[in-house]
Amino acid sequence: MPDLNDAARGRILFGGDYNPEQWPEDVWQEDVRLMREAGVNTATVGVFSWARLEPRPGARDFGWLDRVLDLLDTNGIGAVLATPTASPPPWMGARHPETLPRSEDGSVIWYGSRNQFCASSPVYRDYARRITEDLAERYREHPALRMWHINNEYCTSCWCDETARHFRRWLSARYGSLDALNEAWGTAFWSQRYDAWEEIVPPRKVQYIVNPTQGLDFRRFTSDALLECFTAERDIVARHSPGIPVTTNFMPLWIGQDGWTWAGREDVVSVDIYPDPKDPHGGAYGAMVHDLTRSQAGGPWMLMEQAAGPVNWRGVNHPKPPGLMRLWSLQAVARGADAVCFFQWRQSRQGSEKFHSGMLTHTGQGGRTFQEVKGLGADLVRLAAAVDGRVESQAAILHDWNAWWAGQQPGRPSTLLDYEQVLRAWHQALWESGITTDFAHPEADLSRYPLLLVPHLYLLTDAALDNLAGYVRAGGTLVCGFFTGVADEDDRIRAGGVDVRLRELLGLAAVHEWWPLDGGETVTVEDTGLGTFSGTLWSEDLEPAGAHPVAVHKGGVLDGRPAVTRHPYGDGTAWYVSVLPEPAALRALLARAADETGVRPPLPGLPAAVEAVHRGSLLFLLNHGQHPATVPVPGAHTDLLTGRDVTDEIHLDRYGVAVLRQDGT
Amino acid sequence: MPDLNDAARGRILFGGDYNPEQWPEDVWQEDVRLMREAGVNTATVGVFSWARLEPRPGARDFGWLDRVLDLLDTNGIGAVLATPTASPPPWMGARHPETLPRSEDGSVIWYGSRNQFCASSPVYRDYARRITEDLAERYREHPALRMWHINNEYCTSCWCDETARHFRRWLSARYGSLDALNEAWGTAFWSQRYDAWEEIVPPRKVQYIVNPTQGLDFRRFTSDALLECFTAERDIVARHSPGIPVTTNFMPLWIGQDGWTWAGREDVVSVDIYPDPKDPHGGAYGAMVHDLTRSQAGGPWMLMEQAAGPVNWRGVNHPKPPGLMRLWSLQAVARGADAVCFFQWRQSRQGSEKFHSGMLTHTGQGGRTFQEVKGLGADLVRLAAAVDGRVESQAAILHDWNAWWAGQQPGRPSTLLDYEQVLRAWHQALWESGITTDFAHPEADLSRYPLLLVPHLYLLTDAALDNLAGYVRAGGTLVCGFFTGVADEDDRIRAGGVDVRLRELLGLAAVHEWWPLDGGETVTVEDTGLGTFSGTLWSEDLEPAGAHPVAVHKGGVLDGRPAVTRHPYGDGTAWYVSVLPEPAALRALLARAADETGVRPPLPGLPAAVEAVHRGSLLFLLNHGQHPATVPVPGAHTDLLTGRDVTDEIHLDRYGVAVLRQDGT
Amino acid sequence: MPDLNDAARGRILFGGDYNPEQWPEDVWQEDVRLMREAGVNTATVGVFSWARLEPRPGARDFGWLDRVLDLLDTNGIGAVLATPTASPPPWMGARHPETLPRSEDGSVIWYGSRNQFCASSPVYRDYARRITEDLAERYREHPALRMWHINNEYCTSCWCDETARHFRRWLSARYGSLDALNEAWGTAFWSQRYDAWEEIVPPRKVQYIVNPTQGLDFRRFTSDALLECFTAERDIVARHSPGIPVTTNFMPLWIGQDGWTWAGREDVVSVDIYPDPKDPHGGAYGAMVHDLTRSQAGGPWMLMEQAAGPVNWRGVNHPKPPGLMRLWSLQAVARGADAVCFFQWRQSRQGSEKFHSGMLTHTGQGGRTFQEVKGLGADLVRLAAAVDGRVESQAAILHDWNAWWAGQQPGRPSTLLDYEQVLRAWHQALWESGITTDFAHPEADLSRYPLLLVPHLYLLTDAALDNLAGYVRAGGTLVCGFFTGVADEDDRIRAGGVDVRLRELLGLAAVHEWWPLDGGETVTVEDTGLGTFSGTLWSEDLEPAGAHPVAVHKGGVLDGRPAVTRHPYGDGTAWYVSVLPEPAALRALLARAADETGVRPPLPGLPAAVEAVHRGSLLFLLNHGQHPATVPVPGAHTDLLTGRDVTDEIHLDRYGVAVLRQDGT
Repeated sequence: MPDLNDAARGRILFGGDYNPEQWPEDVWQEDVRLMREAGVNTATVGVFSWARLEPRPGARDFGWLDRVLDLLDTNGIGAVLATPTASPPPWMGARHPETLPRSEDGSVIWYGSRNQFCASSPVYRDYARRITEDLAERYREHPALRMWHINNEYCTSCWCDETARHFRRWLSARYGSLDALNEAWGTAFWSQRYDAWEEIVPPRKVQYIVNPTQGLDFRRFTSDALLECFTAERDIVARHSPGIPVTTNFMPLWIGQDGWTWAGREDVVSVDIYPDPKDPHGGAYGAMVHDLTRSQAGGPWMLMEQAAGPVNWRGVNHPKPPGLMRLWSLQAVARGADAVCFFQWRQSRQGSEKFHSGMLTHTGQGGRTFQEVKGLGADLVRLAAAVDGRVESQAAILHDWNAWWAGQQPGRPSTLLDYEQVLRAWHQALWESGITTDFAHPEADLSRYPLLLVPHLYLLTDAALDNLAGYVRAGGTLVCGFFTGVADEDDRIRAGGVDVRLRELLGLAAVHEWWPLDGGETVTVEDTGLGTFSGTLWSEDLEPAGAHPVAVHKGGVLDGRPAVTRHPYGDGTAWYVSVLPEPAALRALLARAADETGVRPPLPGLPAAVEAVHRGSLLFLLNHGQHPATVPVPGAHTDLLTGRDVTDEIHLDRYGVAVLRQDGT
Repeated sequence: MPDLNDAARGRILFGGDYNPEQWPEDVWQEDVRLMREAGVNTATVGVFSWARLEPRPGARDFGWLDRVLDLLDTNGIGAVLATPTASPPPWMGARHPETLPRSEDGSVIWYGSRNQFCASSPVYRDYARRITEDLAERYREHPALRMWHINNEYCTSCWCDETARHFRRWLSARYGSLDALNEAWGTAFWSQRYDAWEEIVPPRKVQYIVNPTQGLDFRRFTSDALLECFTAERDIVARHSPGIPVTTNFMPLWIGQDGWTWAGREDVVSVDIYPDPKDPHGGAYGAMVHDLTRSQAGGPWMLMEQAAGPVNWRGVNHPKPPGLMRLWSLQAVARGADAVCFFQWRQSRQGSEKFHSGMLTHTGQGGRTFQEVKGLGADLVRLAAAVDGRVESQAAILHDWNAWWAGQQPGRPSTLLDYEQVLRAWHQALWESGITTDFAHPEADLSRYPLLLVPHLYLLTDAALDNLAGYVRAGGTLVCGFFTGVADEDDRIRAGGVDVRLRELLGLAAVHEWWPLDGGETVTVEDTGLGTFSGTLWSEDLEPAGAHPVAVHKGGVLDGRPAVTRHPYGDGTAWYVSVLPEPAALRALLARAADETGVRPPLPGLPAAVEAVHRGSLLFLLNHGQHPATVPVPGAHTDLLTGRDVTDEIHLDRYGVAVLRQDGT
Repeated sequence: MPDLNDAARGRILFGGDYNPEQWPEDVWQEDVRLMREAGVNTATVGVFSWARLEPRPGARDFGWLDRVLDLLDTNGIGAVLATPTASPPPWMGARHPETLPRSEDGSVIWYGSRNQFCASSPVYRDYARRITEDLAERYREHPALRMWHINNEYCTSCWCDETARHFRRWLSARYGSLDALNEAWGTAFWSQRYDAWEEIVPPRKVQYIVNPTQGLDFRRFTSDALLECFTAERDIVARHSPGIPVTTNFMPLWIGQDGWTWAGREDVVSVDIYPDPKDPHGGAYGAMVHDLTRSQAGGPWMLMEQAAGPVNWRGVNHPKPPGLMRLWSLQAVARGADAVCFFQWRQSRQGSEKFHSGMLTHTGQGGRTFQEVKGLGADLVRLAAAVDGRVESQAAILHDWNAWWAGQQPGRPSTLLDYEQVLRAWHQALWESGITTDFAHPEADLSRYPLLLVPHLYLLTDAALDNLAGYVRAGGTLVCGFFTGVADEDDRIRAGGVDVRLRELLGLAAVHEWWPLDGGETVTVEDTGLGTFSGTLWSEDLEPAGAHPVAVHKGGVLDGRPAVTRHPYGDGTAWYVSVLPEPAALRALLARAADETGVRPPLPGLPAAVEAVHRGSLLFLLNHGQHPATVPVPGAHTDLLTGRDVTDEIHLDRYGVAVLRQDGT
């Protein structure tokens, strides 16, 4: 199978979405001239061009695209060619209203924006197949073609009747019989037993709490229905050009798509990342997305979209201060990206995203943004030759969409419990300690990681539970967070509330009760090692059976009961953390568990806000702080970005980056 | 007519909803064993069993229910048998979409949850009638049968076309002619005059404020339409088993059902109560619900549902700390309950309420909850023999759904004015003073109460106004709150803004203007007796005509105007309270009015947070506080819960309860 | 063309909406007696009388209206006669459901409130035409008739299929060809290209951000569609009674109607004003609305509706403290009104607005409100003979609905940027400095104003840009606020982000980036003249090219960059203000620019909260403060309200007003 290197060909891909159809052709010449000036080597074209390519049903207008691709090729710029299927032309919705999605309340989602397609619609699928076929046929051998980009940020859901029929087929394949479905969904509750497949509908607007397994399966189905759309198009382009890698761009930590399954179906894993430039934890967030994407890719990955400046869809859209765009771009390279791209090359003058920045903004080539883009292009050229290693992690965080989906349903102990927030808190604690982590699926082979973290997996399959037990038994160190192992694959509560296998592993007789905390409420926990700290969000009434209470509650209903436990199991160790410790305490706790396991940061004594990460033999140093920092780096190095020698310490400006190669390597 | 004692038969009913159809039959054996161990003597079955009982239209599957009822009977456990009509099977909505309710905006409420029936649908009603008939026919003489439970928490509203036709019939019966309707609804305003019955629809989505009397009548109609569903099923079961009492479980202070009317149509009044365990006023709230339910029942009543631990539908669902479940259960007995039941016996493993606790939780019989349930069962056995008296109140609070409905419409002086909040504030003030109150309908015979409270009745009928005047004239003491007597039965403003009869009674020439207060805004009021206090929510510009100004405004627009007045009228006295005093001031004010009337708490010098209430000859003492308390109880008593002698004082733990019988009685 | 004086006939119109159909006819006699007692000389009748006038399709019931008009005439009270078309009778929606509007999500807006008509419906339009024709025919020569009032507060929007067809016709007329529309809407973005007119729909519910120019044109279309309804009715009444002026009542600063266009189509400009009596800036708000309405009218205008006391549609509805109703009424006269009217004469007893106050409230003629109404009536008689001059302003604020519409679309730099808020801030700053302003359209002749203010016009046409440049070139002083001149008429971003003509005028090479501020965030700005002040909401990275930096940023990302600039251009001066200064600083800044231009308040040394404004030769002094004030007025005057001599200073009570005529004039 082709991979990212078939597109990158030894370079770091650099460029962005390019929508020349929004501009007169005389602007195109300026575009490629400035692309070359900026070191751009790749352009993503055609993402939203369906109405241009197929102005009416069955018609084709490829001439302009021929000229665009030829122009790019002439200028040495490769093309990531997109199928245009994320946004059907208005004629489709007008002529085939059944292709328009319907909301939970039955109302229609119209055209006039984008993404207005029902993934279950045979009409939509047929049109999508045909335009993809013609596009692949025409450009299969175009010299500019480097990669196929299918659709864009798959995210639609639909509750229409066609979707209902499709959902039934999917359920029938999953369960085989209606009895099995009734059993899995627990339809004995509230008189929901289905007597015929035809009765089943998506979880539409209801009076009260909807059946949670119906909701969970609809999440699974929707991800799969979109995946069918993806694979149908992927198969077409792969048939025409087998050597060209295929991708679709993920939204990071997007709840709608099962990223593990999807990543397995594409040649290149790519992602769009848009942290808020004002988020003080933007660097930690980026690192998490990079780690997740790299783990999904199993190697180099592609940053498909980021903003050179502000986006336009937040309440208040802040530009990126000088240096921040470069910092976050190089952070992606540090954490495994071989492609750093943007949405979009030239900022639009019209339409819904005209205030979304571009590499070339409204103020043009004289503006700060384009100058910084050029600088980044030069940096990437400097790094391309040197960067070839991989990011190796000694720790992994378990993450699973099924657990996320099941755990976010209504009717649970606390609606304040947000899966992503807990995941971010744990990853950030490790990142701030300088420990680089992978993400892994709960049923994956985990044996290469000395340290394993499970911040919160409400749902764990039998296989995952056995996997965890085997991991610790074989010597691994597991740190497990609260409200984990509660539900089985059908969102059925495990006997005892928490699965007995997990309890045995953790050395707990019982988790008697979940005591979720109100917003702003804290519990006080005393840890002999870490001192007293506060916990938020959650607490539990634990009864140990073998586990050592590392930290106990002080005061409150749970006074004296354990809050954090540690349990030797087989050749390994299992920790349990039943609260969400305040950030400093979580950092110290996880660092302690890591240290016991021999997992340590690449450099000791890192200043706060400086990230240090190895990619192959290179050491990336990234200063996320508002102030300059001095970093001790024992020995003699060369900074690849400046070419300067670095001995024993290096000074980093605000948002400064260094990429060090140890002399002699 | 049969009553609660026909079911209780000298015991206090103790048990819960039992849904064995959610479990394999081998679990049933453990269920009844543990029920017996816990002292459970009653189980409510069948509430949501329609899809199981009638798996497809007209089919019947009663075998499992036969076995359940036989098993209960064999084990000495009585059954409250429910008609399953609260949750129609999916086949009904799928085959008869017109049975599904529609929202104000026309969108459909689907199955997949519960309560998805239109109360006006003949199809739904027919299916409901037939399953009820067959159920009643089959189990009419089953020895386990103790009570019929119709439907569950009636609460649906519907705005569909069938509802529109039904609404028109109801209106036609109410008004006789379209002219009378146009007059009552004030359709001269905004060109709303109806020219034909067919034009009338429920108050659907509109551009601006809907006609308030249309809204009020739709509230009345919806309550009545649901009541028709109830009485149709009641008549069937009563015909089959005339000696078995019939109930349906109310939600307390639920705005959707006119509780006075409904209570009159059932043999047993039962209620579901779910205070937030973290609500510091949960005890006061429970007391109010108990008082209201007892008043609706006119004697002993049934606590049909409460949670042994956390519920699952709040934002954050807190367990009950040790002792709280017992405290609140015994509080219900203290205030007249002869049945203490739970939703549900065994916590579900699947479905929308799997995180709603049960008497037997996921952690099982070893858990704290089941241990406390057993303890409560034993307490109830101890009390059953001794408890037979009634709770006698010397004070009554007037409460009326019509006033609530009319007063909560949009387009009024203040949307911050919340009927239930005002009612709670007044009841809590009395409860904290140790004064037990009944609730009463404004047109009821009030002569047995020395003290009458009207916290806020925006709408008062002519009959009610005459009733109030007669009550005071005959010597009663009335304390009347603001914004009362403003509207007539059709929500037509009374001449002068406040009805002249009420003004005469209160000694007021005019209520010139309502000055509602903003959130957080207060007015300062000076009372010669109580000192200076602050008022919130509301104020008024009063012009006395005979009334004595007890407290006057200090500062602000109303500086020097009376805020609280007192007026001798006939042989009685009428107070008027035109602000919502801060809690301590309201408590002092009502205690003063009570004291003048000779209405006093059962024990003087009660510590704060300790509730004392007489039921017959027994004195219940309940400590709602977080700390232990010592209560002076002059004389010699026996605590029925411990069997210990109590002389002159008793110590109560946090959440502790004592039930004292004076020695010699 | 007839004008307001044809109705006022030398008097100041005084009265209110009069809805006798809500009352028995014996009340009418009391009405006119009390009207005469209060000095009422005008009554607006028929606004919501359609169902009464046309009880079923085609029927007519004019008898009651004959009697009302005769009664008014007999008592010397003129009538403003309304077409009843704002609220179709229920029979129209019931028989012709296509006349009911549909929301963006397709749901129907029902009758039962008001305004339930689709402006594009031929059925509605036909019925409206016919009732208007008959009304005009019947009352064309009635002696009571003084003015025609068309419909009421036009405000409905509709997204139905009929509207879609109408929208297409409107677009076809605007653009001529589909290619031109595709170009204007930028449909190359997101694959939105239209291939046939039939594909175009209103901007209905979509998945993500809707096409902004589609949204902008739908705003324009909706204003125009309503205007077609207005002009159709206007033409009918004008044909029947050519000497009678025609109006429709505006809601002030209502985004739905292009006030400049509408005002040009009516003989009298009238407005409804409902400031919150608790708004500390209510006086400033009133002044702004008066100034805008006067500018739209180009002379005397009509205050059609205000409340004598509380309204009923806010969350909390406060009465007006004593004096406030008079103050705000006389403020309108001061700023050019020749008519001071109310909604409504007699407070309704039923319907959605029964808690909206009237001139005659529920408490009747003995109440405070009616007493103050009588006092105001007497004041107006005193003023009527003396008031004949106009309000002359030396400053104008540019205001344009197109800019408002375009700038409020989703997907912009900051959703906190609220057009009306910025407009209010600037007008209030001038008002507090005592500088009376007109409002003007950006393409209007501005040459008579020494000072021109553009708080924020995101969209400026080419003609407007040229107009501004010409204005300054010819010697005018322009003060221009941020984020102005960004978009062209189609909401296409101008090259460079801000139009080059505006940049030249302002002396700016570039506005590099918009740095919107978060809620609560401020920037610090240092001004050599005004000292250090803080800016909120917005900031920008400016590159001057000729402009002098009046104030610069201190600290933050923009440290040292100019925040306020001043640029000599031609014979004039152009200021640019790139932040929203805190109120005191904005006041000082604008006062400085005004002072340089020779624009000064009518009196120096005015106490805070006292408004001074000249109308012709009269000087109105209005104390908006909570406390009395003493105002220096050099020379000898007579206060027309009291008849007293005033020499050198005058004392004003809280909410006090004086109208001074200089002795000898």
